[in-house]
Amino acid sequence: MKIGIIGAGRIGKVHLESVSRYVKGAEVVAMADPFLNAETEEFIKGFGVKKVSRDYKEILADKEIDAVLICSSTDTHAPVSLEAIAAGKHVFCEKPVDHDIQNILKVKKALEGSKVKYQVGFNRRFDHNFAAVRAAVEEGKIGALNVLKICSRDPAAPPVSYIKVSGGIFLDMTIHDFDMVRFLSGDEVESVYAMGGVLVDKGIGEAGDIDTAVITMRLKSGALAVIDNCRRAAYGYDQRAEAFGELGQVAVGNDTCSTAVISNKDGVTAEKPLYFFLERYMQAYVKEVSEFIDCVQKDKPVPVGIEDGLQAVRIGVAAKKSLAEGREVKLSEIEG
Amino acid sequence: MKIGIIGAGRIGKVHLESVSRYVKGAEVVAMADPFLNAETEEFIKGFGVKKVSRDYKEILADKEIDAVLICSSTDTHAPVSLEAIAAGKHVFCEKPVDHDIQNILKVKKALEGSKVKYQVGFNRRFDHNFAAVRAAVEEGKIGALNVLKICSRDPAAPPVSYIKVSGGIFLDMTIHDFDMVRFLSGDEVESVYAMGGVLVDKGIGEAGDIDTAVITMRLKSGALAVIDNCRRAAYGYDQRAEAFGELGQVAVGNDTCSTAVISNKDGVTAEKPLYFFLERYMQAYVKEVSEFIDCVQKDKPVPVGIEDGLQAVRIGVAAKKSLAEGREVKLSEIEG
Amino acid sequence: MKIGIIGAGRIGKVHLESVSRYVKGAEVVAMADPFLNAETEEFIKGFGVKKVSRDYKEILADKEIDAVLICSSTDTHAPVSLEAIAAGKHVFCEKPVDHDIQNILKVKKALEGSKVKYQVGFNRRFDHNFAAVRAAVEEGKIGALNVLKICSRDPAAPPVSYIKVSGGIFLDMTIHDFDMVRFLSGDEVESVYAMGGVLVDKGIGEAGDIDTAVITMRLKSGALAVIDNCRRAAYGYDQRAEAFGELGQVAVGNDTCSTAVISNKDGVTAEKPLYFFLERYMQAYVKEVSEFIDCVQKDKPVPVGIEDGLQAVRIGVAAKKSLAEGREVKLSEIEG
Amino acid sequence: MKIGIIGAGRIGKVHLESVSRYVKGAEVVAMADPFLNAETEEFIKGFGVKKVSRDYKEILADKEIDAVLICSSTDTHAPVSLEAIAAGKHVFCEKPVDHDIQNILKVKKALEGSKVKYQVGFNRRFDHNFAAVRAAVEEGKIGALNVLKICSRDPAAPPVSYIKVSGGIFLDMTIHDFDMVRFLSGDEVESVYAMGGVLVDKGIGEAGDIDTAVITMRLKSGALAVIDNCRRAAYGYDQRAEAFGELGQVAVGNDTCSTAVISNKDGVTAEKPLYFFLERYMQAYVKEVSEFIDCVQKDKPVPVGIEDGLQAVRIGVAAKKSLAEGREVKLSEIEG
Repeated sequence: MKIGIIGAGRIGKVHLESVSRYVKGAEVVAMADPFLNAETEEFIKGFGVKKVSRDYKEILADKEIDAVLICSSTDTHAPVSLEAIAAGKHVFCEKPVDHDIQNILKVKKALEGSKVKYQVGFNRRFDHNFAAVRAAVEEGKIGALNVLKICSRDPAAPPVSYIKVSGGIFLDMTIHDFDMVRFLSGDEVESVYAMGGVLVDKGIGEAGDIDTAVITMRLKSGALAVIDNCRRAAYGYDQRAEAFGELGQVAVGNDTCSTAVISNKDGVTAEKPLYFFLERYMQAYVKEVSEFIDCVQKDKPVPVGIEDGLQAVRIGVAAKKSLAEGREVKLSEIEG
Repeated sequence: MKIGIIGAGRIGKVHLESVSRYVKGAEVVAMADPFLNAETEEFIKGFGVKKVSRDYKEILADKEIDAVLICSSTDTHAPVSLEAIAAGKHVFCEKPVDHDIQNILKVKKALEGSKVKYQVGFNRRFDHNFAAVRAAVEEGKIGALNVLKICSRDPAAPPVSYIKVSGGIFLDMTIHDFDMVRFLSGDEVESVYAMGGVLVDKGIGEAGDIDTAVITMRLKSGALAVIDNCRRAAYGYDQRAEAFGELGQVAVGNDTCSTAVISNKDGVTAEKPLYFFLERYMQAYVKEVSEFIDCVQKDKPVPVGIEDGLQAVRIGVAAKKSLAEGREVKLSEIEG
Repeated sequence: MKIGIIGAGRIGKVHLESVSRYVKGAEVVAMADPFLNAETEEFIKGFGVKKVSRDYKEILADKEIDAVLICSSTDTHAPVSLEAIAAGKHVFCEKPVDHDIQNILKVKKALEGSKVKYQVGFNRRFDHNFAAVRAAVEEGKIGALNVLKICSRDPAAPPVSYIKVSGGIFLDMTIHDFDMVRFLSGDEVESVYAMGGVLVDKGIGEAGDIDTAVITMRLKSGALAVIDNCRRAAYGYDQRAEAFGELGQVAVGNDTCSTAVISNKDGVTAEKPLYFFLERYMQAYVKEVSEFIDCVQKDKPVPVGIEDGLQAVRIGVAAKKSLAEGREVKLSEIEG
Repeated sequence: MKIGIIGAGRIGKVHLESVSRYVKGAEVVAMADPFLNAETEEFIKGFGVKKVSRDYKEILADKEIDAVLICSSTDTHAPVSLEAIAAGKHVFCEKPVDHDIQNILKVKKALEGSKVKYQVGFNRRFDHNFAAVRAAVEEGKIGALNVLKICSRDPAAPPVSYIKVSGGIFLDMTIHDFDMVRFLSGDEVESVYAMGGVLVDKGIGEAGDIDTAVITMRLKSGALAVIDNCRRAAYGYDQRAEAFGELGQVAVGNDTCSTAVISNKDGVTAEKPLYFFLERYMQAYVKEVSEFIDCVQKDKPVPVGIEDGLQAVRIGVAAKKSLAEGREVKLSEIEG
């Protein structure tokens, strides 16, 4: 299967490397980025990619290419998706599909009746730890779900310049956790209440965003879910979840570099969580693209579709509204 | 120091046993309970208590007695407190002081200018685990507090008959956690949002209460706090806390009966949390009364005063209002 | 039941305090120590003990006294035991009964046909962690035992003056672990091989002893056991065990002061093990004497008898011989 | 760099896959196995290997090939090594180099003055956990080493037919742990004492071998080391180590599939260790060959040389002698 990658930023490079090394039966044959420089071009060619350009339209026009990975900036996800679907390319699109629900709905509409496979890049669904929580819930090991808790903290806040175009914490960072709520519970969100603050970087507040949040949700089943987020954790990338139900609880913690524990006069010290999201989720990046390719090849439904991309954004928009209005917002108030 | 205990129910017996065995320099000389039966009388006398009666007024009238422990039903806490203060007895009063803020304010008023020491029975402040969190926060080990999380789940729901007179989950169960928020943060609650459900026992819902809740709070400093409660945890009494700040996190888990871990074909299995609150908090019960007696003897301020008793109830009342009205409630809306 | 305590050193005081506070139905009425000073006398009288003297013979002569706890120096254990047995007192004797097997055999002989209960102070049998290992082994949770591992390290080495009269590491320190091998396995030791070194304090070597050792044993069942000892652990009192068998493994770790874990830029740090043996084993000290008293009162066999006292010393003597001769020593080579 | 792999059994295939996928700058161009069948040939060709044959001599004769990985049966390691060295190929040889010290010495001799790089396949040196222990010891985090403990248990015993040609547990299984003793301590073994038994499979005993062992060693520095081995662990592949020294301890445990912990009425259950050595050590297999290739390309000394291959076998031979003679055996008694 021939793959083209649109966008050669950090995540585009991750997919290039992971497809080239670990994904059997797939080959990256083309890559495009409007800001392509010599260093990036050399990096790409080092993986044997022959066609490197500044124009993604070359990829869409290439008959040889079966599927594209859209890794460009968020504002281009929906329009490029529409073009790719029109060109008959299978699409793997990074999250979020768009900040604007209307744009996601256009992509959804374009997919109706199409044979194009469209997968959204919620990589955490492919993480070994979160998959273990989902398996325990699905297999009934905790009985009916009562309370789902997700803790998600970045090691360090991004620059304020990034915050300004990020769509806000709920659509940029919590979007993953909203998807985790749906994935881990196997349920839908009915209403959202968000409380937040600026506790890390005043500049984030000045940019109109928050950096710390607690978001509570009521699910269709009546179960409750709560996410706590922070843009900074001194000890690294903190990614945990607990699902609690009538028969018990399943919890997952962080991954570490080794199991080493040092005991000395100062205490009993284990390793910190892996610091960087690429370290923590590298296997998940490989797995999500492998499964996408497998779904294309075997004509199976993708594991994370446009509906998942849409719902996560709807929850994010509801959270934004809740924060602004200081009240619980029902998802039925949000379009889509 | 001579002690009288008013109320010979479960918690009265706990204090009798702990004072008799572990508290130096104090002696229980009298105990009263209106429902006294032969078995209870024998139990009490087994600890060498000479005066056992049905009338607590005998204790208050006894010149020999320095202090009383009020362990009777919640509705009697405030009136008996007022009588005891009037009689010049030092008072250790079980939580909550009252469900009605006005009654607590009367006790507070009676204490103004009085030499009587008045301590409220928030035993968790004396637990070794929560004390370790408080110490870490106070010593600046996590820097400025950002997010405080408390998980508090009972092993099994009480009978619906108890629920009906309990004052509701927030004043009966979460009251401890509200006090923990104040204790662990060293801060005051500014607003509360509560979401809840009936997921354990429909009878609890029919009695007008909930059994599962997530309560989010904004503190004066801007930090956020979140409590999750459930009346039932299949694996035992689940009592954990995490305080997260600019420099890191301190977390405490549950106590277990032993450190034994069994590895076999089914997994690597450690012991469950201690099941019962008396097992988990026995040392805390001893310590709170020991410190109360020490404060009386050395004329020091008590570690948990009427103000603490008042504020926890105010937060509980705000949570009740939030749940009823589906909005964030400011503590300034609540009397007191 | 009336108790006399012979010896008012550290361990005598521990038993005084634990019997006085925690052991129901028993009362310490007399205590004797040849080196009695004013401070010790005041401490003893603070627990309401009426008869305090320098001569243990007064205790033995006291008709009122039912049982004695022998807490004097090791060289007096056997002769005082013999006198106490002759006086018809039940005896709880601190470990080891004697460094010389012949003297233990004399006590054993004196007990034959006697109604006197004689318990040896192997307190670790009453520790919650080791009891959990024993229970798992006994209940067949690991199947047939294959390998038993005990790690036992003191926080700091005693003074060389103590080492000189200690009987050597095997009879002073490892004796507890030898008893643990017998207790946890429910089996007998057949042969011993000991390797040791002086790695902590050269003075210990100059006194003819070692401070670090690994001792391997073959049990009657064919299972293997291994103990590693050190007189110094920078992080506290390290007391762990693992029993491994055909169906799996049960392991116990150390107790800590709290479950607090601090995560910061330096790592994820839990508390050190409790530093001091009195902290770690206080509950075990209470329990062993409670059970002794219960056995006397109900005329039941004691949980740790003279045979247990004898066998642990025989293994210690075999280990000493193995270290001296650089070969595996069979227990059948040792008298007793 | 062009690589030829000699031997297409399990470990040969592992190296084929890991070099093909993960090792940059190296390419497997040829593979040979005398028992080659159609299935294996297809597997090999699936990785783009062009030359597949039954005769390893074709690989040695191939001018294009820079290095060989010797993955054939143990009895062929030394003779093929000698031929490869003579042919000027760099050699990565699986462990052990030979069961017979004389044969290893011949290889060592052949390497004297040669420019050929020769690395031995002690993969555990490249494991993230053991590397963390080594780093802590090397950086002085535990001070001078006192006691090193290694626990190494296979999930299940191999068939007796394998045992018969394995060279015995010490040269087949413990050989890795002997190398770990040298690697983790940075020290040399001075004497060995081995105790063992047949506790898993009587057939292993009938074949003249043991299946369970405890081996104690004295190191040059005076530190002690102890290994415990078993051919069967019901809960999976158990691979742990503890290094204890004057300033504290560093310990590593097992890796698991996820961090999931399920709490229910039966306990608090984490995942078992990874069951299979390929799962546990896959990253180590990649890393050892990557480093070998890096050493060849940059003309650096290999991280595990012929001397390491020799010493591990010498310790194994000493352990065998100790078990047979029931005494501590000095390494100076063993040739080499």
